[in-house]
Amino acid sequence: MSGTPSSFPDRLAAAVRQTGVPACVGLDPHPERLPEHLAHGLHPADAARAFCLDAIEAVAGVVPAVKPQVAFFEALGSPGLAALEAVVRGARDAGLLVILDAKRGDIGSTAEAYARGTLDDAGPLGCDAVTLSPYLGPESLTPFLARCDREGKGVFVLVRTSNPGAEAWQVAGPDPVADRIGSWVEAESARRAGDHGLGPVGAVIAATVPAEAAHWRALMPHSWFLVPGFGAQGGGVEDVRALFRDDGLGALIVSARGVLFPPGRTADPDWKKGIAIRARGFAQQVASLGP
Amino acid sequence: MSGTPSSFPDRLAAAVRQTGVPACVGLDPHPERLPEHLAHGLHPADAARAFCLDAIEAVAGVVPAVKPQVAFFEALGSPGLAALEAVVRGARDAGLLVILDAKRGDIGSTAEAYARGTLDDAGPLGCDAVTLSPYLGPESLTPFLARCDREGKGVFVLVRTSNPGAEAWQVAGPDPVADRIGSWVEAESARRAGDHGLGPVGAVIAATVPAEAAHWRALMPHSWFLVPGFGAQGGGVEDVRALFRDDGLGALIVSARGVLFPPGRTADPDWKKGIAIRARGFAQQVASLGP
Repeated sequence: MSGTPSSFPDRLAAAVRQTGVPACVGLDPHPERLPEHLAHGLHPADAARAFCLDAIEAVAGVVPAVKPQVAFFEALGSPGLAALEAVVRGARDAGLLVILDAKRGDIGSTAEAYARGTLDDAGPLGCDAVTLSPYLGPESLTPFLARCDREGKGVFVLVRTSNPGAEAWQVAGPDPVADRIGSWVEAESARRAGDHGLGPVGAVIAATVPAEAAHWRALMPHSWFLVPGFGAQGGGVEDVRALFRDDGLGALIVSARGVLFPPGRTADPDWKKGIAIRARGFAQQVASLGP
Repeated sequence: MSGTPSSFPDRLAAAVRQTGVPACVGLDPHPERLPEHLAHGLHPADAARAFCLDAIEAVAGVVPAVKPQVAFFEALGSPGLAALEAVVRGARDAGLLVILDAKRGDIGSTAEAYARGTLDDAGPLGCDAVTLSPYLGPESLTPFLARCDREGKGVFVLVRTSNPGAEAWQVAGPDPVADRIGSWVEAESARRAGDHGLGPVGAVIAATVPAEAAHWRALMPHSWFLVPGFGAQGGGVEDVRALFRDDGLGALIVSARGVLFPPGRTADPDWKKGIAIRARGFAQQVASLGP
């Protein structure tokens, strides 16, 4: 399937080129930050769904992809999961690629069940790609690779995250585990590389460690990077430039709260308009990095 | 809260002593292995729910705890999550401790949402403990530790798993990440240790690597171990003995498929009776390890 227009890396490249914006908006419906007018009288799951569907309308056409964060839906129980299903459908209907932020990781038939639950079009969500936590080992990713090959899906494996504690375990010692995982990501993505020399096995790489950016790009030349930690967590445009290839492909900058919610504790009188304005501001900020 | 009878490690010690069995039955409702008579005509989520509630009745009083595997429920969408909620309620009503096998791991408000979704009594599940994947770093576990302290809950952090690929990343190199994480687990559990010198921060440690067992017990003297890989994956009674303390506390052996399903492709004509018989067999097998 690699190289066909329907592979995830090729669809992502096309969507980034079409919008001109190498970015993705995170859908994190923090219950305590939803607009009061919207949440008033609604079940929390219905409020999360309505807010995210508004956000999708506001960012469609501005960015190529959205990234729903499963945790906020799961915390609301089974109605929350039903809301997530509606949000994923809404995003796909709006022409957005959907990267599910689930950070799943297990083995054998359990990993297979997670792959079915997150990526399969015949399953409840059918997302384009999913984030994975690799601690269990390479075989925790195998069922997801099968979806890359068979269904044109993609994955982003946690390699180097943007939180301060990432230093404690990911990049500690003389032979950091993040480098081992990065090498595995590169090998699996390279052998599946599509039209642009990029494969479906991507990596999560922090915006907050500019000194490491060139290292990660060199270690994984055939991988897309999903890049958290931009803006709120401190990463700026110059901090992430080295995560991109020279042609402006290869990285997708994430913003969630910075787009969804106004700064501070103020409320948006018209939240959908507010999201659209902030999404365009974010898109302009990162457009110079793109193709 | 540490040391009070309501802390998770103390409740677990009491339940292990009461049953005499240091073990836990995994609730993995593989859709293709459910009894045909039960699944026939039911929505897959209803079949998973009915099967797990039968299994709970069959193992209550035999083992102290059950471990529902979230992936099998999630793969069935929001009806699957509603089934999981019913299964967790059923297990608690039957007097079983519930360890949710979720392997979650994230940071900040997302980790907080996962903690609320899995452990909080005011949340959708309210389990006694949850499995966590530590790749993001120590702060990915912080919101869960707050539930240990405030609500008498527990966690089991992936340290050394039973799959062959665990070697690739967990214990590779001169300074393996599993040792670093194990040291952190020990420190956090020791400072919260209860009546038996065991705290609420446990570790997942494989039954399949007997040569490492004494190392892990010595590294984490104040932690409960959740032990997968017994039986089907090859670990036997002598392989896991060194994971226990001398008083028979400190480890909980897991069996899932070996108890839930008859060997091979045969079907149980009376599946609940079959589960009860296999659960008693498993309990007898591991009872000599316990207190």
